Amino acid sequence: MRLTRAFLPTLKETPAEAQIVSHRLMLRAGLIRQTSAGIYAWLPAGLRVLRKVEQIIREEQNRAGAQEILMPTIQPADLWQRSGRYDDYGKEMLRIKDRHDREMLFGPTNEEMITDIFRGYATSYRDLPRNIYHIQWKFRDEVRPRFGVMRGREFLMKDAYSFDLTKESSEHAYRQMFLAYLRTFQRMGLKAVPMRADTGPIGGKLSHEFIILAETGESAVFYDAKFDGQDWAGSDLGYDDVPALEGFFEQVTSMYAATEEMHDEVAWAAVDPASRREGKGIEVGHIFHFGTKYSEPMGLSVAGPDGQPVVPQMGSYGIGVSRLVAALIEANHDENGIKWPDAVAPWKVSILNLKTGDAACDAICEKLHAALPDDAIYDDRSERAGVKFADADLMGFPWQVIVGPRGAAAGKVELKRRMTGEREELPIEEALAKLLRPGAEA
Amino acid sequence: MRLTRAFLPTLKETPAEAQIVSHRLMLRAGLIRQTSAGIYAWLPAGLRVLRKVEQIIREEQNRAGAQEILMPTIQPADLWQRSGRYDDYGKEMLRIKDRHDREMLFGPTNEEMITDIFRGYATSYRDLPRNIYHIQWKFRDEVRPRFGVMRGREFLMKDAYSFDLTKESSEHAYRQMFLAYLRTFQRMGLKAVPMRADTGPIGGKLSHEFIILAETGESAVFYDAKFDGQDWAGSDLGYDDVPALEGFFEQVTSMYAATEEMHDEVAWAAVDPASRREGKGIEVGHIFHFGTKYSEPMGLSVAGPDGQPVVPQMGSYGIGVSRLVAALIEANHDENGIKWPDAVAPWKVSILNLKTGDAACDAICEKLHAALPDDAIYDDRSERAGVKFADADLMGFPWQVIVGPRGAAAGKVELKRRMTGEREELPIEEALAKLLRPGAEA
Repeated sequence: MRLTRAFLPTLKETPAEAQIVSHRLMLRAGLIRQTSAGIYAWLPAGLRVLRKVEQIIREEQNRAGAQEILMPTIQPADLWQRSGRYDDYGKEMLRIKDRHDREMLFGPTNEEMITDIFRGYATSYRDLPRNIYHIQWKFRDEVRPRFGVMRGREFLMKDAYSFDLTKESSEHAYRQMFLAYLRTFQRMGLKAVPMRADTGPIGGKLSHEFIILAETGESAVFYDAKFDGQDWAGSDLGYDDVPALEGFFEQVTSMYAATEEMHDEVAWAAVDPASRREGKGIEVGHIFHFGTKYSEPMGLSVAGPDGQPVVPQMGSYGIGVSRLVAALIEANHDENGIKWPDAVAPWKVSILNLKTGDAACDAICEKLHAALPDDAIYDDRSERAGVKFADADLMGFPWQVIVGPRGAAAGKVELKRRMTGEREELPIEEALAKLLRPGAEA
Repeated sequence: MRLTRAFLPTLKETPAEAQIVSHRLMLRAGLIRQTSAGIYAWLPAGLRVLRKVEQIIREEQNRAGAQEILMPTIQPADLWQRSGRYDDYGKEMLRIKDRHDREMLFGPTNEEMITDIFRGYATSYRDLPRNIYHIQWKFRDEVRPRFGVMRGREFLMKDAYSFDLTKESSEHAYRQMFLAYLRTFQRMGLKAVPMRADTGPIGGKLSHEFIILAETGESAVFYDAKFDGQDWAGSDLGYDDVPALEGFFEQVTSMYAATEEMHDEVAWAAVDPASRREGKGIEVGHIFHFGTKYSEPMGLSVAGPDGQPVVPQMGSYGIGVSRLVAALIEANHDENGIKWPDAVAPWKVSILNLKTGDAACDAICEKLHAALPDDAIYDDRSERAGVKFADADLMGFPWQVIVGPRGAAAGKVELKRRMTGEREELPIEEALAKLLRPGAEA
């Protein structure tokens, strides 16, 4: 895509309303635009990141055996009256009356609806276990939306729901999601630490938050350094191996990790002092096991193997998809802009033509652009080199190919790695081969 | 995916509330489930079709030079007050008040919002032309929602918006979308005919509807048989060739095609009688050119080449994405169920094990299933063959591989093509090679 034809608007000034770095950079790099308080449009570069994040989540959900559906945004109030949460939710719930004066709402989460849908089909223990998820826009009418998409009102969430015949089986479902989450965040280049959590309004007894470590995080966290360098995504632990998954879960949860709220000084004192880490964290996922809290009031029941009715055990598993885009920036930026990890970058390459109109520079850039049809943004504007360097660093694509007249005369281009700042001058073909190599990320 | 683990619920009975065949089949084949009047959840098979339809639309929009963004579902009322449409829209608009009593609405379309967003960035003629689209859920509070997702309240729409400096340039943008639409529908295996249309509440003078021909269509259509067998997708007509695209547009629109409303008996009489076709149609796309109808009141203006302000010319271009899933079924079914065209089928293959527990049948099915990891549903239920045949025909995947004990003993399986009913008995390896061949669709 040529920058002169693209809709990739960058801002030179730092927007005054943005208090945190990810919000500032998302506005400046043209990823999002606010359309109402706490509500954003995703511009082309932002949407591409959002879709890549979504796709990694989808692949890992599917790999763990979860099946994707899509529930609507608008829900009938009576579902929530049945579970008893209609009044509990307070003003955060966006309530709506339709033209026939029926009470509706913009879903903030989907425990009630999925239980009702599943009830329409599940009749026997043979219909269990199932784990069903969707990736859909939610609305929570925050009193003070802030920090951009980090705490917006309309936000994209992946929420999965498990249905099992027994408590043991549903705990296995919980552990499957626990592993899937670790793999998901690692694939995005993030260090996520699972921490025992309060269950809050969702209910239930067993719950973990997944916290990304970032200097600009919202809350203090305490964890054991053993979490560093764990390779969850690379392990071949299977999702159907019940004892192995239980052992894995016990091992990971035995390592100390806690948010400020749940921090336990006694347990912390037992951690090897050399291994104690304190930092700041951003919550990007939350999983819950809540037994029959929703299946019971919503009337979900199946015939067990002996013909007797059984109320299924449930859990729910959320990831803040749109919030993750901001969290990724909090964890990957410098004073010049974003440093996208390869797996989620909107485009892989910026091609910087330092002298448009120069026949050699133009020819090299056209060649590179044609060779990377969906992976590159070609800065073909007639701007000063300094403007192009600044925009490329701001937008933060993993590779910059810098094409100037001196190098062009020698058949060379400069390759810059945004994440590390490393630079090298290479013959054009070598640079291209490097960019086209599937392992160029490594 | 094994049917015993999948969430692919089929219904034996025909739901009483469904009046048209696509609605009946979508409920019976487990594609959708109603959650409120005119509001549906998409179950796994339905969602896979929806995503394939969406992806074909996206690819053709991108190929035509349009750029994807994503606007939110909830819009502020003041945007619509500025354009003057807030009152016009009546009760079809779902109006909402947030916790601070601000007037909001669930977007039924996005002319106002995109114009406002674009205004935030475009300052010069150099920022034009641009064509920007999104694929997002919309809401229209129909007084009597019916026919399933064909006329639902919450529905998925692709809407593109073009911004141009001159009327000539914006007419070119219109023709680009005209061609992109013909290609899009053809790729889905649909015959779509563009018909001159009323502009309705969107406004403007130039407008075409794209009508899919289906026996169960909602309105009568009249068209020239020359439309049959046209290959828009296969042509190499480029989107940047202004005169060629104009010639193409003139040629296509010179062929007679009209809905009942716009039907002109005099012009119809001039069509060769042997070439006159009458049928029923379903509207799946609608494109509009409306000049400055929104850019003017929304205050969009850019500096022209001479420094003088210019109000950009606009058009908008919609495709009913969720409606297309129903239209595809209206155009592709028989008395036993759906006959998915290859390009949009939820899965490519049904593997029918006629005797689960038989070692040879099980082994063949497992082998086929492993070879088609994301393309096949394996019916491994311990059901009668008749139940499996009926469900496979109902769900309508393009290929059925029928594995019975007699064939298994001879190392053979039966391959059935759902669209045509053709069957052939083949050695296992040959059947597999046929299913794995990229051209298996042909």
